[in-house]
Amino acid sequence: MTGLAVQERFITLEGGEGAGKSTVIAALRDALEAAGEDVVCTREPGGTPLAEEIRGLLLDPQHEAAVPQAELLLVFAARAQHVKRTILPALQRGAWVICDRFTDSSYAYQGGGRGLDAQFIAELERRAVGILPAMTLLLDIDVHEGRVRTSSRDLWPDRIEREQEDFFARARGVFLMRAEADPGRFRVIDAARPRERVAAEAVAHLLRLRESSR
Amino acid sequence: MTGLAVQERFITLEGGEGAGKSTVIAALRDALEAAGEDVVCTREPGGTPLAEEIRGLLLDPQHEAAVPQAELLLVFAARAQHVKRTILPALQRGAWVICDRFTDSSYAYQGGGRGLDAQFIAELERRAVGILPAMTLLLDIDVHEGRVRTSSRDLWPDRIEREQEDFFARARGVFLMRAEADPGRFRVIDAARPRERVAAEAVAHLLRLRESSR
Ligand SMILES: Nc1ncnc2c1ncn2[C@@H]1O[C@H](COP(=O)(O)OP(=O)(O)O)[C@@H](O)[C@H]1O
Ligand SMILES: Nc1ncnc2c1ncn2[C@@H]1O[C@H](COP(=O)(O)OP(=O)(O)O)[C@@H](O)[C@H]1O
Ligand SMILES: [Mg+2]
Ligand SMILES: [Mg+2]
Repeated sequence: MTGLAVQERFITLEGGEGAGKSTVIAALRDALEAAGEDVVCTREPGGTPLAEEIRGLLLDPQHEAAVPQAELLLVFAARAQHVKRTILPALQRGAWVICDRFTDSSYAYQGGGRGLDAQFIAELERRAVGILPAMTLLLDIDVHEGRVRTSSRDLWPDRIEREQEDFFARARGVFLMRAEADPGRFRVIDAARPRERVAAEAVAHLLRLRESSR
Repeated sequence: MTGLAVQERFITLEGGEGAGKSTVIAALRDALEAAGEDVVCTREPGGTPLAEEIRGLLLDPQHEAAVPQAELLLVFAARAQHVKRTILPALQRGAWVICDRFTDSSYAYQGGGRGLDAQFIAELERRAVGILPAMTLLLDIDVHEGRVRTSSRDLWPDRIEREQEDFFARARGVFLMRAEADPGRFRVIDAARPRERVAAEAVAHLLRLRESSR
């Protein structure tokens, strides 16, 4: 009993930098639209005008770096806004919502990466988020391999991308632990394979979920 | 037992709009400087570059309005940053810190005003703030009277100043309840009197605290 309300048409993508989340989301959107569904693709931190401004404060290295607790609270402020203003309204009108990162990323990055207490993160989730996706696709890849893929982005790395590999290794460990603890929600996808294979597996999971819920 | 660390030279000012906090702070600073003390005057939300940007997101009506939970988390994100980057470093080098609003304002505005749960606010205080002022001067004034004083500011009211009188009446009630519950920390000052009287009383409280802690 988590006290969180599972949302039937709400799907999240998780995984490290360069795992292929953005690439997979495009394939998921195409598949749902081909099936005649209304789809909203969104991302975190972000997804509303205010939440995107918070994203800028968090990620743009021009701003003063947030201390870990401030970073955590900014991420959850953006998420509370995103859930209330974008995600729930879309779900309520019957759309599917596909979100690039969600609360699992806070356990991985602020919890595993920065070392903040998971119990506090859970309290923020319960108080300020309140919902869980029906399915979370975890695109799992070796940290170094993922970073090689994003090397073109690395010319202007954001604040998270500037972290060292051990930070991302701790985050990956948390993602995998959470997937193991909740196999009903998570699908772990080996993201080291060619993009067509990865996308096809993700689409298959999505269409199976859609069938099972009809 | 609150689990919060009381900071000897840390003073906060609380009270409604137009109570005279900024006016009193100038008098407190003068009194401490005349006594040869190092003084840092700061404010909330704000007090670091990042926290001031968060203040802009919260108060500037040009931004999308934060939902109540997001507002609460933004306020505490700014406060965590402020404590870690400005307040504690100043206290550690031996300065006095005088702060225009602090955690009591969150209980009053986000708790009383917006109706958010005080237990959650207490959890945020414990996790992300961790400190309490040695003395809090509560400048108490009738809501309407305070607003008449700030009427010149009302040409471009910020997001909080746009609230209705019942919002501020609830906030005032919370301030007074908190003062009653912690008479060791609070000094309630009748702020309806002339500014010289108000300032003199505030300065007397401060100098008495300074004597008692030498
Ligand atoms: N399976 C894959 N194999 C090789 N390269 C990939 C694969 N998936 C994505 N890429 C490439 O890796 C980079 C990062 O992919 P992206 O989808 O942006 O990852 P993420 O959103 O998880 O950071 C992009 O250049 C993308 O084209
Ligand atoms: N005791 C007082 N009596 C009358 N006017 C006052 C008094 N204290 C402050 N003011 C005036 O009221 C306005 C609001 O005071 P200010 O110190 O900015 O309040 P706050 O910072 O609490 O909002 C200012 O114009 C100030 O000069
Ligand atoms: Mg991406
Ligand atoms: Mg003021």
